Amino acid sequence: MHIENPQVSIIMGSQSDLPVMKEATEILTELGISFELTLISAHRTPLRMLKFAENAHLRGVKVIIAGAGGAAHLPGMVASLTHLPVIGVPVKSSNSIDGWDSILSILQMPNGIPVATVALNAAKNAGLLAARILGSTDEKIAQKMMNFRAELEEKVNQSIEEIRFSYPNGFDV
Amino acid sequence: MHIENPQVSIIMGSQSDLPVMKEATEILTELGISFELTLISAHRTPLRMLKFAENAHLRGVKVIIAGAGGAAHLPGMVASLTHLPVIGVPVKSSNSIDGWDSILSILQMPNGIPVATVALNAAKNAGLLAARILGSTDEKIAQKMMNFRAELEEKVNQSIEEIRFSYPNGFDV
Amino acid sequence: MHIENPQVSIIMGSQSDLPVMKEATEILTELGISFELTLISAHRTPLRMLKFAENAHLRGVKVIIAGAGGAAHLPGMVASLTHLPVIGVPVKSSNSIDGWDSILSILQMPNGIPVATVALNAAKNAGLLAARILGSTDEKIAQKMMNFRAELEEKVNQSIEEIRFSYPNGFDV
Amino acid sequence: MHIENPQVSIIMGSQSDLPVMKEATEILTELGISFELTLISAHRTPLRMLKFAENAHLRGVKVIIAGAGGAAHLPGMVASLTHLPVIGVPVKSSNSIDGWDSILSILQMPNGIPVATVALNAAKNAGLLAARILGSTDEKIAQKMMNFRAELEEKVNQSIEEIRFSYPNGFDV
Amino acid sequence: MHIENPQVSIIMGSQSDLPVMKEATEILTELGISFELTLISAHRTPLRMLKFAENAHLRGVKVIIAGAGGAAHLPGMVASLTHLPVIGVPVKSSNSIDGWDSILSILQMPNGIPVATVALNAAKNAGLLAARILGSTDEKIAQKMMNFRAELEEKVNQSIEEIRFSYPNGFDV
Amino acid sequence: MHIENPQVSIIMGSQSDLPVMKEATEILTELGISFELTLISAHRTPLRMLKFAENAHLRGVKVIIAGAGGAAHLPGMVASLTHLPVIGVPVKSSNSIDGWDSILSILQMPNGIPVATVALNAAKNAGLLAARILGSTDEKIAQKMMNFRAELEEKVNQSIEEIRFSYPNGFDV
Amino acid sequence: MHIENPQVSIIMGSQSDLPVMKEATEILTELGISFELTLISAHRTPLRMLKFAENAHLRGVKVIIAGAGGAAHLPGMVASLTHLPVIGVPVKSSNSIDGWDSILSILQMPNGIPVATVALNAAKNAGLLAARILGSTDEKIAQKMMNFRAELEEKVNQSIEEIRFSYPNGFDV
Amino acid sequence: MHIENPQVSIIMGSQSDLPVMKEATEILTELGISFELTLISAHRTPLRMLKFAENAHLRGVKVIIAGAGGAAHLPGMVASLTHLPVIGVPVKSSNSIDGWDSILSILQMPNGIPVATVALNAAKNAGLLAARILGSTDEKIAQKMMNFRAELEEKVNQSIEEIRFSYPNGFDV
Repeated sequence: MHIENPQVSIIMGSQSDLPVMKEATEILTELGISFELTLISAHRTPLRMLKFAENAHLRGVKVIIAGAGGAAHLPGMVASLTHLPVIGVPVKSSNSIDGWDSILSILQMPNGIPVATVALNAAKNAGLLAARILGSTDEKIAQKMMNFRAELEEKVNQSIEEIRFSYPNGFDV
Repeated sequence: MHIENPQVSIIMGSQSDLPVMKEATEILTELGISFELTLISAHRTPLRMLKFAENAHLRGVKVIIAGAGGAAHLPGMVASLTHLPVIGVPVKSSNSIDGWDSILSILQMPNGIPVATVALNAAKNAGLLAARILGSTDEKIAQKMMNFRAELEEKVNQSIEEIRFSYPNGFDV
Repeated sequence: MHIENPQVSIIMGSQSDLPVMKEATEILTELGISFELTLISAHRTPLRMLKFAENAHLRGVKVIIAGAGGAAHLPGMVASLTHLPVIGVPVKSSNSIDGWDSILSILQMPNGIPVATVALNAAKNAGLLAARILGSTDEKIAQKMMNFRAELEEKVNQSIEEIRFSYPNGFDV
Repeated sequence: MHIENPQVSIIMGSQSDLPVMKEATEILTELGISFELTLISAHRTPLRMLKFAENAHLRGVKVIIAGAGGAAHLPGMVASLTHLPVIGVPVKSSNSIDGWDSILSILQMPNGIPVATVALNAAKNAGLLAARILGSTDEKIAQKMMNFRAELEEKVNQSIEEIRFSYPNGFDV
Repeated sequence: MHIENPQVSIIMGSQSDLPVMKEATEILTELGISFELTLISAHRTPLRMLKFAENAHLRGVKVIIAGAGGAAHLPGMVASLTHLPVIGVPVKSSNSIDGWDSILSILQMPNGIPVATVALNAAKNAGLLAARILGSTDEKIAQKMMNFRAELEEKVNQSIEEIRFSYPNGFDV
Repeated sequence: MHIENPQVSIIMGSQSDLPVMKEATEILTELGISFELTLISAHRTPLRMLKFAENAHLRGVKVIIAGAGGAAHLPGMVASLTHLPVIGVPVKSSNSIDGWDSILSILQMPNGIPVATVALNAAKNAGLLAARILGSTDEKIAQKMMNFRAELEEKVNQSIEEIRFSYPNGFDV
Repeated sequence: MHIENPQVSIIMGSQSDLPVMKEATEILTELGISFELTLISAHRTPLRMLKFAENAHLRGVKVIIAGAGGAAHLPGMVASLTHLPVIGVPVKSSNSIDGWDSILSILQMPNGIPVATVALNAAKNAGLLAARILGSTDEKIAQKMMNFRAELEEKVNQSIEEIRFSYPNGFDV
Repeated sequence: MHIENPQVSIIMGSQSDLPVMKEATEILTELGISFELTLISAHRTPLRMLKFAENAHLRGVKVIIAGAGGAAHLPGMVASLTHLPVIGVPVKSSNSIDGWDSILSILQMPNGIPVATVALNAAKNAGLLAARILGSTDEKIAQKMMNFRAELEEKVNQSIEEIRFSYPNGFDV
């Protein structure tokens, strides 16, 4: 099951983050972008985090996606240990205060060490952001992202049709 | 003054955002990464925004940095019109409610259209994140980012020395 | 099902906003004010949004009601593309942080481009506000609004009676 | 100084709201829309508020702009006493908690009685919203609003030029 | 069912507030303090509110308890129309934003017109506060309040005993 | 300087609360209501607090006003030790987080022990609420409170006149 | 059931806090640290609180853990009556506003009287913090804490293994 | 200047935290408790943090005080690398959002790794908490803490006297 040379590495602080974080794997699979996935807890496995972050670029990883909840230190700490772009996913875990702690702990990084933060629980967007990053220098992925946006629009158009024919006063522009 | 083939495009919603956003230009200059800069208001120049976002990748731009305050729609709208990675800088403008409106308007994008959000007013981190993104496939920039992190550490070490010799009970690890 | 010369145009960012937004259609129907309804996503169908907003007044629309959740850019962006009054309905969608993101993204528009924001999920009030706007120059609608307020009072009076006869110590003023 | 048949009536809860609220008078003056202005305190002059709200439409007023701070009851109470559209301006007064109390007291009206809420301290936008409302059935005002938007864009263009010639790497789209 | 000379008048903005507000009636009944109860909506029955507030003291009412949710204007508006002490109960209604709107709309009254605000949904405490107010000049009620506090303590003592004998390491001070 | 039989007792947690709390003394002096004032710190002088709260009613005190900032325990603790009505004034002290901690620590008392909370820093309203409470059974004070409200209105009327004659388009209802 | 010389004393404001607070007892039992547990309500049993806090150190208690919700005064008041370290557990009780009131009432203590606050509902961490405190001068407990951290890591490692073999692209560092 | 066997180690994330954190040194000096002080940045010197945290107990440190602002990871990360009690001081730094980010990043640690959080900027209380912790097994420090509390009370008493003789209606209990 071990994957060679994954372009994206997806890590998360707790097994309970998996239901949220798997959306990142789904969109990357859909886009045909290779990835790996594991647990790394900043607080419970700090040395594992250190080892991972220092080596990721050596293993060919191009982008890291890190999800965590509560006082979410994983994305910021990994960002401090690598020069790769790190995408942070604030997870609204059971012990989080409506997600505010997760968001602020990931977003409000000091100058010097950026984390690319996405919306609360938005692991799918994390995957898409990783694809955009790869696509900025990979023409094939760029093309896929253009297609993805076209498909998004297509799906809206289908909903528009549904509504137009079933809902009072539905219209098209 | 027009620059050919900038790698990073820095846009902002208002001239009043310049004091914040120029920190992005400074760090990019320091890192030797080419960039361009202009105003684009989502609300006052929507067609200009459209034109910019649809063409940026054609002009060779690899990463877009967009700063805005209050109901900050610029980063998200540009992200919806391009497949390039868009970094959003929430600006604490005079009409902002302590920055919360700027942050939430940029961060909480729906699934499908990600914006890589950095901390409030953190234009410097936006520049560094752009560099990390470029560095993920550009060895030279990657090397610069490693050096940058080493310099960050060096500056802390200098502060440590200052404190050690001038402050009661200063120590080193 | 296509309606000619609707006075009010109701748009929303996602099909999931329909359960909230249909309350606007119900009150407009009750008041006998013509309306149309469709989906327009600021982020997934930006060009459709542009076309809609630039043409709405040409089709005779007098007031636009726009509902959206999360980083809700639709009301503000439409307002930037038309001179018609735009009523914004913050929707507490599943990915919203208790509705705060929806509210602030719609309410905190910069000077120059106003959005008439109503309460969280208050699509009914959006419909009533549209009626008030139309009523300010349409005597018939004005009369209906006066009747509506009288009916509101009448309904309270019925509740008062119920309570007076069934609840200990109920009284009338 | 008394004005005949004002189209817009601007009221506010306290003399201390004047520095904010006068921006509404300035934009209405600029747009050539007649208005009147006075103080009405929901809490200190409740009967005056009642008299004003019940009579405003009889005096020909088409839109009411009401500004207030803290537990801001004026806009909502006036809206409950008239069928005219009421625009609420949350004012960040000295006793307000960063404006949150003003915003929520005005915005979160129950279904039945809408208030068109604008951003914190955004009296200018309140004036513009009044103009949009009047313009929805007054072709001349509609034309002025189109011009206003064009001027907004023009001002941004001037800023763009300034930046292009004085700032490193300024560019045009 | 009409009660003569009630000491406390309990009003609320909506029938949906009854499940919360009935706790005030229960504690007043328990304490043998006479009260009346009805609906008065600041927004839907403003004239009824006016009549009630101006006459309450003439009917012998000593304390008013007013509960409301969302943009809760009832307690403050009644306080502006009477010199009686008004106790405000912020109700977490279905359209409230976690109760923050209810709290701030009631609590943040301007200087001149106080409202005695209790905790979110704390209608029982509103009843107890009314009793404390009456007890400050009524020896019998004062005595009841002392007894009430003794009973509170007694109930805690019972819980302490339960825990002491059934829970590991329960102890007494 | 010691006063006999004060009707109102004003206490506060710290000398730094005096500039806020003296507004309570001013309005009570204006209304001719006797009061006493001292410092009592829940955290630094807990036994003094105990002695004060248990004895206040024996000394003839009818209402207690307690001001405190940060984790403000004074009003609630005093309320737990007396049956007198306790008015809590949340003070925005230097170590407070915009006053939120002061407000929530005073307002959110558990059922059983109410505190009559007024707005942030609203010591004047605390004094007025004390007067309303005393006035509910003291005809003279009741009359003063009616006069006070009339004066409030008079002051607004003066501002209205000022604005009417000096400000463009000032009007009267 | 009475325990001699407990090292840790666990108190809470209400029986409803038990489901949260028992996690403190479980971890202390696991670590073999002696403890006692009871109810003490700051508001309903203030004298009991006084007696407890003044005597705890005389009974050999080394650390106090105090849990409470809403306007949570117990931890701070106990800290003001003892010199022992007091750990405060904010409990998200049914009458709490998402826990914010509990957190701020415990955390924001004035300088002079510290409370060691842990996360919302984090009674387990309160027990672990008590163990760390005892372990700072008790070699055996220190050793247990090192083991506990090793076990935490071990549990993460098991989850890693599970994921590695069952989840697409699971990997190890 | 190097100190042997400090009991308390004070670390902070940035030199800009010194003005806040020096209050911890002042109170420890006053109490005669030995301490050391240095800078350790979780994000800029992660390996230094690792070395410090793993070795602190070997150098005889009994309690660690860690201050940081914004996305404050230092206290939590250090706590994950040691079994010593770690006291976290949220610092309201210039890039912090009113301190909320600092508080939540430090307070909301996951179960397993506690941080003893004190109030925003409350470095003095951090020092006092360290003293309480040491005092729980050191009779001399315990005695000092009792004296400290007596002095706190004495200072309040002095303020009471000042107010009693200089302020209208000052009184003593």
